[in-house]
Amino acid sequence: MKSISILGSTGSIGINTLNVIRLHPERFKVTALAAGSNLDLFAAQIKEFKPRLVSLEREEDALKLSSIVGPSVEVLYGAEGAESVAVYDNPDVTVSAITGAAGLLPTLAAAKAGGVVALANKESLVLAGSIVMAEAKKSGATIVPVDSEHSAIMQSLVGHRREDIKRIILTASGGPFLDRPQEDFVNITPQQALKHPNWDMGAKVTIDSATLLNKGLEVIEARWLFDLSPDEISVLVHPQSIVHSMVEYLDGSIISQMGAPDMRGPIAYALAYPERIETGVEPCDLTRGPLEFREPDMKKFPCLGLAYDALRAGGTMPAALNAADEVAVRAFLEGQVAFTAISGIIEDTLTRNAPGNGATIEEITSADRVARENARRAVKKVEL
Amino acid sequence: MKSISILGSTGSIGINTLNVIRLHPERFKVTALAAGSNLDLFAAQIKEFKPRLVSLEREEDALKLSSIVGPSVEVLYGAEGAESVAVYDNPDVTVSAITGAAGLLPTLAAAKAGGVVALANKESLVLAGSIVMAEAKKSGATIVPVDSEHSAIMQSLVGHRREDIKRIILTASGGPFLDRPQEDFVNITPQQALKHPNWDMGAKVTIDSATLLNKGLEVIEARWLFDLSPDEISVLVHPQSIVHSMVEYLDGSIISQMGAPDMRGPIAYALAYPERIETGVEPCDLTRGPLEFREPDMKKFPCLGLAYDALRAGGTMPAALNAADEVAVRAFLEGQVAFTAISGIIEDTLTRNAPGNGATIEEITSADRVARENARRAVKKVEL
Repeated sequence: MKSISILGSTGSIGINTLNVIRLHPERFKVTALAAGSNLDLFAAQIKEFKPRLVSLEREEDALKLSSIVGPSVEVLYGAEGAESVAVYDNPDVTVSAITGAAGLLPTLAAAKAGGVVALANKESLVLAGSIVMAEAKKSGATIVPVDSEHSAIMQSLVGHRREDIKRIILTASGGPFLDRPQEDFVNITPQQALKHPNWDMGAKVTIDSATLLNKGLEVIEARWLFDLSPDEISVLVHPQSIVHSMVEYLDGSIISQMGAPDMRGPIAYALAYPERIETGVEPCDLTRGPLEFREPDMKKFPCLGLAYDALRAGGTMPAALNAADEVAVRAFLEGQVAFTAISGIIEDTLTRNAPGNGATIEEITSADRVARENARRAVKKVEL
Repeated sequence: MKSISILGSTGSIGINTLNVIRLHPERFKVTALAAGSNLDLFAAQIKEFKPRLVSLEREEDALKLSSIVGPSVEVLYGAEGAESVAVYDNPDVTVSAITGAAGLLPTLAAAKAGGVVALANKESLVLAGSIVMAEAKKSGATIVPVDSEHSAIMQSLVGHRREDIKRIILTASGGPFLDRPQEDFVNITPQQALKHPNWDMGAKVTIDSATLLNKGLEVIEARWLFDLSPDEISVLVHPQSIVHSMVEYLDGSIISQMGAPDMRGPIAYALAYPERIETGVEPCDLTRGPLEFREPDMKKFPCLGLAYDALRAGGTMPAALNAADEVAVRAFLEGQVAFTAISGIIEDTLTRNAPGNGATIEEITSADRVARENARRAVKKVEL
């Protein structure tokens, strides 16, 4: 029986994690949950899975929840609450699925605790990859990625020799605007950008998929997860989202992992690692249609290039990239700026980022804060 | 430095094996070679690679060769010569690439010797899979397949748990007649059938690719190589021959191996196993065109179904299948029978095969001999 802590249980990864756990009551026990502000769903999850410790973002929600769930469950709140959930009773697996930079500290806490970190919060590695991986190495924690691409890479690496890798190839659906003419990008509405062709995800990551910035963050994440140089990480557009990613070896051999586009696949892989379990995911029918691949259009999707730039620059640059993107995407979703302004806001912010080696969490959070301010200023300049 | 014996050095696998070895003079040393009757090429190979023992099919060729290569090379001939080459000086790797049933005994000798058997001769496993695998287990030999499909399966299995396998999926190009209307099959000429869309191979295996019997033999081979039941082995037509085969796991995940269709890939994998080496194979460009998959048409290609039948029947039935096919394909290539007669000849032969558990080489070779006689009789009945 594995004990599981989930950070972000009411988000789409959290919900799907509980869907997988529900299939295997003999295998998993939920010991702690953290969520944002979706009180109703969180209360229902607590009722069903009976964790002993839970946490919400705000104190007032925590107070409300306490009166609902009664004294048998300890209710915390805020960043410290999330960190407590991350490591409560030394869980076998901590699922880190809080969206955004807020996921960093609880992920770091889990990495220090030494169990399996099922990592959906890519910002932890984008912002502080060297720190998180160093802590994991020190404690013996295993970071198992919970996005489809990195899970595919991990599954395409097991059993093969590290020194035989030529490069990894992250696949990208290309998002909803893959075939839209670039001159029409300026008219893209949030509603259009929120319709992802293959994946059902949160709003932020859906917009990031439409700009390909999401793929850029994944490139940075891969750099840390698999200890690769930027040149060893490629991106290939694959509109069908069946081949979830690939590893090319020096003999010309490519190992890939495929499956239906369903997050329960990588979630189950991380929960049961190194075993595999039933997921409830329908089998992948390869006869349904052809699998296509093309090089990404870096002109149409400049955010991908910006991410490579930030990775190559290193230090706090990826943190600034991520912060600027969070601000820009929010501004786009709120109708403040055009879709095409997102990359400019990020670029503007990156040029203002002070050099810093990003060796401490303080440096990173400071760069994050400054970048947000700069990005907000950049938003003002291009406001509609 | 690995010592290598090659059985069938003048065939297409043998030539490509030497092409790979030529790239890595610091890594491989050819110690023994066996070939059929291509004296000129064989003499040139001996001159270049300097094996200490060689063997040809016929005594008269061996005598001729002796006078060419001089006394520094020992020249043998016949089945015993090939067996000597297979095990000479306990090679690290024996490449078993003699075509047809003639490859069985030298393969068995190599399996008993305990090194790596780089197995291109699929008949060894089709005829005597249980015996060859049992001997390999006893001696500690590792059978590494040298056809693209089984190499892909092996590469998609390493590092994963045996108990997590749901099924393997062998891909098939579908051969040159995939889209030819079935009513026109009767007009297929040997010349047409010898044109394979993707692979450059010998005549027998090219015709077998056109009938899909080759895929059937691979199903039987896979049964033994990977210890699977017939129901755990599927076939999927994939005209581009880029995905060389796949393994589906119980969580819905499919691991596949891809690459350019070039035999140097699987050959190099087997030679260097468990490492990978440069192959000279051009990188696989996935942007060249879509990858398509479809279910095989068992009506148009009845030989595939016959192979599954023979595998399920077990005993000497696969040996009879293989023998009947060798006879039928030769008759087709010599213009004796129509392309469409091949499956009928095999079916006729299978119904006449006496039950036998195939536990001994004698039983198998006897079934093989009787099946050839029956197949020749069946050929006479449908002769053009």
